[in-house]
Amino acid sequence: MKSVERVLKGDRLALARLLTQIENEDASGLEALSALYPHTGHAHRIGITGAPGTGKSSLVNRLALHLRQNGWSEQAEPEAETVAIVAVDPSSPFSGGAFLGDRIRMRDLYGDPGIFIRSMASRGALGGLARATVDMVEVLDAAGFAAILIETVGAGQAEVDIARMAHTVVVVDAPGLGDDVQAIKAGILEIADILVVNKADLPGAENTLRALQLVLELANTAQRTKPDAAARDVAPQPAWVPPVLPTVAIQGDGIVELAQAIHDHREHLDLSGEYAARERARVRTEMEELLRQQLLEGFLMHQPEGAFEAALELVLTKKKAPRQAVREMIEGKKR
Amino acid sequence: MKSVERVLKGDRLALARLLTQIENEDASGLEALSALYPHTGHAHRIGITGAPGTGKSSLVNRLALHLRQNGWSEQAEPEAETVAIVAVDPSSPFSGGAFLGDRIRMRDLYGDPGIFIRSMASRGALGGLARATVDMVEVLDAAGFAAILIETVGAGQAEVDIARMAHTVVVVDAPGLGDDVQAIKAGILEIADILVVNKADLPGAENTLRALQLVLELANTAQRTKPDAAARDVAPQPAWVPPVLPTVAIQGDGIVELAQAIHDHREHLDLSGEYAARERARVRTEMEELLRQQLLEGFLMHQPEGAFEAALELVLTKKKAPRQAVREMIEGKKR
Repeated sequence: MKSVERVLKGDRLALARLLTQIENEDASGLEALSALYPHTGHAHRIGITGAPGTGKSSLVNRLALHLRQNGWSEQAEPEAETVAIVAVDPSSPFSGGAFLGDRIRMRDLYGDPGIFIRSMASRGALGGLARATVDMVEVLDAAGFAAILIETVGAGQAEVDIARMAHTVVVVDAPGLGDDVQAIKAGILEIADILVVNKADLPGAENTLRALQLVLELANTAQRTKPDAAARDVAPQPAWVPPVLPTVAIQGDGIVELAQAIHDHREHLDLSGEYAARERARVRTEMEELLRQQLLEGFLMHQPEGAFEAALELVLTKKKAPRQAVREMIEGKKR
Repeated sequence: MKSVERVLKGDRLALARLLTQIENEDASGLEALSALYPHTGHAHRIGITGAPGTGKSSLVNRLALHLRQNGWSEQAEPEAETVAIVAVDPSSPFSGGAFLGDRIRMRDLYGDPGIFIRSMASRGALGGLARATVDMVEVLDAAGFAAILIETVGAGQAEVDIARMAHTVVVVDAPGLGDDVQAIKAGILEIADILVVNKADLPGAENTLRALQLVLELANTAQRTKPDAAARDVAPQPAWVPPVLPTVAIQGDGIVELAQAIHDHREHLDLSGEYAARERARVRTEMEELLRQQLLEGFLMHQPEGAFEAALELVLTKKKAPRQAVREMIEGKKR
């Protein structure tokens, strides 16, 4: 399989082509993905999420530049890291933000072979987008990028999906976007490993920082007993307390500290054993989803033409309950 | 099946017992559900969602009282409607809000056989909660309640699930909870058929009303081309423009107008043909989910002990890609 070898050797054109194949769920692309899989598991996958207007694209841009130039932490001899950026925009495919973000990135990052940027816009179901993103991140991991930054707009399901595929989740906030302690924030905090208040030079930044700290303190007590931990196969462990970091991305302020915090979080994951636990939970969920999907596809393929529609009609006309209709479809197949 | 007959005859104790069975996924409960299914399809299912602090529990309480006393619209001879309330709290099972809400409701509504209240707290997976809620709403529908109010905390996936099972979705906001035009609001607006600004006597209410109107106007242009319409099997139709209604629930202000708006929306659904389209999309999604779930359960049941765990281990050690491992599990079964 030629494209696999070329991707492993660092051929960027082959990589871009393979990613397009995978985005289109092309069969040969998925085959290449399987061949690449043994080479995965080395990248640090970092999810970066936040509402529009928080400046998270600039933040991602600056973080990528920093990692390219100085690596993770302040050292005497900095070691540059290769970086891939996957920008996922589950909103309109014609989002002005995405285009502008790309242009800003281009200017600083274009031409550096140690950086690879890919934008994905929603084309249909949100579930399909998450699926494609997971697969593309695997390919970028196999291609040898040390850090993969997965950027997405913070809104409901997209965040949950990102939390599932990332090792470290950075949630970006900014002053003036509604600083009150909201339920929605509590939901975001559950997935945040690091909190950033970008645009920290704006008036109100102090309030935003304080509000997030407060919510964190409130959440911290509850977090220790949250049922989610069991569901994610996460063992009890010394708690990681998400830091709240001020940044001014367009000036590069606070980027060193952010890179350091991400590095610290990764160390925490490794030392506490949570890294292995997260990986196990992530892969388990992914396999269950693939199993469900493939079983459904295989089942429907072997159904007589229109069988599902006929069952749907029976349920709509109240002749059968959904569970009953589904059971009969399945049992009919076995006969 | 005795419990089915008793539920159909209006026996509230039998109803409560059946709901508990269904919540516990008890086999005889699910059988009763299938027997009741032909009697469903008459209730107007109304989802009511909003952040904590918006006073949506009081709003639900007042709306239920109004429907009991005056029915849907202001008429010379008002026709009372029977009402069921399902309060879903996907957050902590020890939420103070839920308990307080129940107590307030109790005082006004307890003892009226035309009203039925059921609280559900999260006990594990969010998906399981949504599943149980769908089933319980079916039972309440079969039991003859004209209106079913499904109340939930507005946060991500719970809202999407509620949008799927309700005919009319009411989103509740309040002043002082962050009035800015946020991305998260845009997401909520996509599912809202009616917007309520509760606590409209508080300072800042005018701003909240205006902000929501503005977001609505912005969203309205985009909405006409949103891909979601196709996914939901919704035919092109004269657009419903969600009204923005001020209320002061604890004083009962604006409740008449809210009931009227819900009634109007139901009429719109019927006249535009969207009611049938929503029902079709809802049942289709439900059947696909049941199919996926039952296929997975049936598949895993016939797998040798530990087969899934063994496959998981192969993937974790990078010996196999997830897709490959899953495909081999499925193909192994066929052999």
